[in-house]
Amino acid sequence: MKPDFSKQNGLLPAIAQSASDGKILMLAYMNELAWDMTVKTGKAHYWSRSRKKLWLKGEESGHVQLVEEILLDCDLDTILLKVNQLGGAACHTGYPSCFYRRYRDGELETIEEPVFDPTEVYKK
Amino acid sequence: MKPDFSKQNGLLPAIAQSASDGKILMLAYMNELAWDMTVKTGKAHYWSRSRKKLWLKGEESGHVQLVEEILLDCDLDTILLKVNQLGGAACHTGYPSCFYRRYRDGELETIEEPVFDPTEVYKK
Repeated sequence: MKPDFSKQNGLLPAIAQSASDGKILMLAYMNELAWDMTVKTGKAHYWSRSRKKLWLKGEESGHVQLVEEILLDCDLDTILLKVNQLGGAACHTGYPSCFYRRYRDGELETIEEPVFDPTEVYKK
Repeated sequence: MKPDFSKQNGLLPAIAQSASDGKILMLAYMNELAWDMTVKTGKAHYWSRSRKKLWLKGEESGHVQLVEEILLDCDLDTILLKVNQLGGAACHTGYPSCFYRRYRDGELETIEEPVFDPTEVYKK
Protein backbone atom coordinates (compact mmCIF):
# COMPACT_ATOMS: atom_id res chain seq x y z
CA MET A 1 0.00 0.00 0.00
CA LYS A 2 1.10 3.52 -0.81
CA PRO A 3 -0.52 6.71 -2.11
CA ASP A 4 -1.93 6.50 -5.64
CA PHE A 5 0.71 8.27 -7.69
CA SER A 6 -1.15 7.43 -10.88
CA LYS A 7 -3.37 10.42 -10.01
CA GLN A 8 -2.70 14.12 -10.51
CA ASN A 9 0.29 13.59 -12.74
CA GLY A 10 2.06 11.80 -9.92
CA LEU A 11 2.18 14.85 -7.69
CA LEU A 12 0.06 14.64 -4.53
CA PRO A 13 -0.48 17.28 -1.84
CA ALA A 14 1.18 16.54 1.48
CA ILE A 15 0.18 18.40 4.63
CA ALA A 16 2.71 18.76 7.43
CA GLN A 17 1.12 19.07 10.87
CA SER A 18 2.97 19.56 14.12
CA ALA A 19 2.79 16.29 16.07
CA SER A 20 3.01 18.17 19.35
CA ASP A 21 0.31 20.83 19.06
CA GLY A 22 -1.65 20.04 15.88
CA LYS A 23 -0.72 23.27 14.13
CA ILE A 24 -0.71 22.97 10.35
CA LEU A 25 2.77 23.94 9.23
CA MET A 26 2.73 23.81 5.44
CA LEU A 27 1.45 22.08 2.36
CA ALA A 28 3.84 20.86 -0.30
CA TYR A 29 3.80 18.17 -2.99
CA MET A 30 5.25 14.69 -3.15
CA ASN A 31 5.99 12.50 -6.10
CA GLU A 32 6.73 8.84 -5.61
CA LEU A 33 10.45 9.47 -5.11
CA ALA A 34 9.76 12.02 -2.36
CA TRP A 35 7.37 9.56 -0.73
CA ASP A 36 9.89 6.73 -0.86
CA MET A 37 12.66 8.91 0.56
CA THR A 38 10.37 10.16 3.34
CA VAL A 39 9.40 6.62 4.33
CA LYS A 40 12.98 5.38 4.10
CA THR A 41 14.66 8.20 6.04
CA GLY A 42 11.92 9.40 8.41
CA LYS A 43 12.59 12.95 7.24
CA ALA A 44 10.03 14.81 5.13
CA HIS A 45 10.99 15.04 1.47
CA TYR A 46 8.92 16.88 -1.12
CA TRP A 47 9.10 17.57 -4.81
CA SER A 48 9.96 21.20 -5.45
CA ARG A 49 7.73 22.29 -8.31
CA SER A 50 9.67 25.53 -8.80
CA ARG A 51 13.12 23.92 -8.76
CA LYS A 52 11.93 20.65 -10.31
CA LYS A 53 13.95 18.54 -7.92
CA LEU A 54 13.69 16.37 -4.86
CA TRP A 55 13.70 18.56 -1.77
CA LEU A 56 14.69 17.42 1.68
CA LYS A 57 12.78 19.92 3.80
CA GLY A 58 15.39 21.81 5.83
CA GLU A 59 18.32 20.88 3.59
CA GLU A 60 19.41 24.51 3.53
CA SER A 61 17.94 25.93 6.76
CA GLY A 62 18.52 22.86 8.92
CA HIS A 63 14.82 22.96 9.81
CA VAL A 64 14.22 19.31 9.07
CA GLN A 65 10.86 17.65 9.72
CA LEU A 66 11.13 14.37 11.60
CA VAL A 67 8.14 12.26 10.65
CA GLU A 68 6.29 10.75 13.58
CA GLU A 69 3.20 9.47 11.80
CA ILE A 70 1.88 9.21 8.24
CA LEU A 71 -1.84 9.22 7.50
CA LEU A 72 -3.49 8.75 4.10
CA ASP A 73 -6.89 9.97 3.05
CA CYS A 74 -9.87 7.98 1.81
CA ASP A 75 -8.93 8.44 -1.86
CA LEU A 76 -5.22 7.74 -1.33
CA ASP A 77 -4.37 11.01 -3.01
CA THR A 78 -3.49 13.23 -0.06
CA ILE A 79 -0.76 12.63 2.49
CA LEU A 80 -0.72 13.89 6.06
CA LEU A 81 2.60 13.93 7.92
CA LYS A 82 2.67 14.48 11.64
CA VAL A 83 6.11 15.89 12.25
CA ASN A 84 8.53 17.20 14.79
CA GLN A 85 9.59 20.49 13.19
CA LEU A 86 13.22 21.18 14.06
CA GLY A 87 14.06 24.85 14.52
CA GLY A 88 10.45 25.64 15.38
CA ALA A 89 9.62 27.08 11.99
CA ALA A 90 8.43 25.50 8.76
CA CYS A 91 8.06 28.56 6.56
CA HIS A 92 10.89 30.06 4.51
CA THR A 93 9.64 33.48 5.63
CA GLY A 94 10.69 32.68 9.22
CA TYR A 95 7.20 32.15 10.58
CA PRO A 96 6.40 28.92 12.44
CA SER A 97 3.72 28.02 9.90
CA CYS A 98 3.18 28.99 6.27
CA PHE A 99 -0.35 29.84 7.40
CA TYR A 100 0.66 32.91 9.38
CA ARG A 101 -2.03 35.18 7.95
CA ARG A 102 -5.74 35.26 8.59
CA TYR A 103 -8.16 36.35 5.89
CA ARG A 104 -11.04 38.56 6.90
CA ASP A 105 -13.18 40.91 4.79
CA GLY A 106 -10.65 41.08 1.98
CA GLU A 107 -7.72 41.81 4.29
CA LEU A 108 -4.84 39.66 5.54
CA GLU A 109 -3.77 39.95 9.15
CA THR A 110 -0.51 38.43 10.39
CA ILE A 111 -1.25 36.28 13.42
CA GLU A 112 2.16 34.73 14.19
CA GLU A 113 5.55 36.04 15.25
CA PRO A 114 8.59 35.12 13.14
CA VAL A 115 11.04 32.67 14.68
CA PHE A 116 14.02 33.44 12.47
CA ASP A 117 15.31 36.02 10.02
CA PRO A 118 15.37 34.46 6.55
CA THR A 119 18.23 36.67 5.41
CA GLU A 120 20.36 35.10 8.14
CA VAL A 121 19.24 31.52 7.60
CA TYR A 122 19.38 31.43 3.80
CA LYS A 123 22.79 32.98 3.31
CA LYS A 124 24.22 32.46 -0.12
CA MET B 1 -6.67 40.23 -1.17
CA LYS B 2 -7.65 36.70 -1.97
CA PRO B 3 -5.89 33.47 -2.95
CA ASP B 4 -4.02 33.57 -6.24
CA PHE B 5 -6.35 31.71 -8.57
CA SER B 6 -4.08 32.45 -11.51
CA LYS B 7 -2.01 29.50 -10.24
CA GLN B 8 -2.61 25.79 -10.72
CA ASN B 9 -5.28 26.24 -13.36
CA GLY B 10 -7.40 28.11 -10.85
CA LEU B 11 -7.82 25.12 -8.55
CA LEU B 12 -6.16 25.46 -5.14
CA PRO B 13 -5.99 22.92 -2.31
CA ALA B 14 -8.09 23.75 0.73
CA ILE B 15 -7.52 22.01 4.04
CA ALA B 16 -10.41 21.75 6.49
CA GLN B 17 -9.29 21.55 10.12
CA SER B 18 -11.57 21.18 13.11
CA ALA B 19 -11.64 24.50 14.94
CA SER B 20 -12.31 22.75 18.24
CA ASP B 21 -9.60 20.08 18.39
CA GLY B 22 -7.24 20.77 15.48
CA LYS B 23 -7.93 17.48 13.73
CA ILE B 24 -7.43 17.64 9.98
CA LEU B 25 -10.72 16.63 8.44
CA MET B 26 -10.16 16.63 4.70
CA LEU B 27 -8.49 18.25 1.75
CA ALA B 28 -10.49 19.37 -1.26
CA TYR B 29 -10.07 21.96 -3.99
CA MET B 30 -11.49 25.44 -4.47
CA ASN B 31 -11.82 27.53 -7.56
CA GLU B 32 -12.60 31.22 -7.31
CA LEU B 33 -16.35 30.58 -7.30
CA ALA B 34 -16.04 28.13 -4.40
CA TRP B 35 -13.89 30.65 -2.54
CA ASP B 36 -16.37 33.47 -3.12
CA MET B 37 -19.31 31.32 -1.99
CA THR B 38 -17.41 30.19 1.11
CA VAL B 39 -16.58 33.76 2.10
CA LYS B 40 -20.09 34.97 1.34
CA THR B 41 -22.03 32.23 3.14
CA GLY B 42 -19.63 31.11 5.89
CA LYS B 43 -20.15 27.51 4.75
CA ALA B 44 -17.33 25.60 3.07
CA HIS B 45 -17.79 25.23 -0.67
CA TYR B 46 -15.40 23.31 -2.89
CA TRP B 47 -15.07 22.49 -6.55
CA SER B 48 -15.85 18.85 -7.17
CA ARG B 49 -13.26 17.66 -9.66
CA SER B 50 -15.12 14.41 -10.30
CA ARG B 51 -18.54 16.00 -10.79
CA LYS B 52 -17.15 19.22 -12.26
CA LYS B 53 -19.46 21.41 -10.24
CA LEU B 54 -19.61 23.69 -7.25
CA TRP B 55 -20.04 21.61 -4.13
CA LEU B 56 -21.49 22.86 -0.88
CA LYS B 57 -19.89 20.44 1.57
CA GLY B 58 -22.75 18.62 3.29
CA GLU B 59 -25.33 19.47 0.64
CA GLU B 60 -26.42 15.82 0.55
CA SER B 61 -25.41 14.52 4.00
CA GLY B 62 -26.27 17.66 5.95
CA HIS B 63 -22.73 17.59 7.33
CA VAL B 64 -22.04 21.22 6.56
CA GLN B 65 -18.78 22.90 7.61
CA LEU B 66 -19.31 26.25 9.33
CA VAL B 67 -16.20 28.33 8.72
CA GLU B 68 -14.77 29.95 11.83
CA GLU B 69 -11.46 31.18 10.43
CA ILE B 70 -9.67 31.31 7.07
CA LEU B 71 -5.88 31.28 6.84
CA LEU B 72 -3.80 31.65 3.68
CA ASP B 73 -0.27 30.39 3.14
CA CYS B 74 2.84 32.35 2.24
CA ASP B 75 2.41 31.76 -1.50
CA LEU B 76 -1.34 32.48 -1.50
CA ASP B 77 -1.97 29.15 -3.17
CA THR B 78 -3.24 27.02 -0.29
CA ILE B 79 -6.29 27.71 1.85
CA LEU B 80 -6.82 26.56 5.42
CA LEU B 81 -10.34 26.58 6.81
CA LYS B 82 -10.93 26.16 10.52
CA VAL B 83 -14.42 24.76 10.70
CA ASN B 84 -17.16 23.54 12.92
CA GLN B 85 -18.02 20.20 11.30
CA LEU B 86 -21.72 19.53 11.70
CA GLY B 87 -22.62 15.88 12.17
CA GLY B 88 -19.17 15.13 13.55
CA ALA B 89 -17.88 13.58 10.36
CA ALA B 90 -16.25 15.04 7.26
CA CYS B 91 -15.60 11.90 5.24
CA HIS B 92 -18.12 10.32 2.88
CA THR B 93 -17.05 6.95 4.28
CA GLY B 94 -18.58 7.89 7.66
CA TYR B 95 -15.30 8.46 9.46
CA PRO B 96 -14.76 11.75 11.30
CA SER B 97 -11.75 12.56 9.12
CA CYS B 98 -10.74 11.48 5.64
CA PHE B 99 -7.38 10.68 7.25
CA TYR B 100 -8.66 7.67 9.19
CA ARG B 101 -5.81 5.37 8.21
CA ARG B 102 -2.23 5.31 9.34
CA TYR B 103 0.54 4.13 7.03
CA ARG B 104 3.25 1.97 8.50
CA ASP B 105 5.64 -0.45 6.79
CA GLY B 106 3.52 -0.73 3.67
CA GLU B 107 0.28 -1.38 5.57
CA LEU B 108 -2.71 0.81 6.36
CA GLU B 109 -4.27 0.63 9.79
CA THR B 110 -7.66 2.19 10.52
CA ILE B 111 -7.34 4.44 13.55
CA GLU B 112 -10.81 6.01 13.80
CA GLU B 113 -14.31 4.74 14.44
CA PRO B 114 -17.03 5.57 11.91
CA VAL B 115 -19.67 8.07 13.02
CA PHE B 116 -22.33 7.22 10.45
CA ASP B 117 -23.27 4.54 7.94
CA PRO B 118 -22.84 5.98 4.45
CA THR B 119 -25.54 3.72 2.98
CA GLU B 120 -28.02 5.39 5.36
CA VAL B 121 -26.81 8.94 4.85
CA TYR B 122 -26.43 8.91 1.08
CA LYS B 123 -29.75 7.35 0.16
CA LYS B 124 -30.71 7.79 -3.43
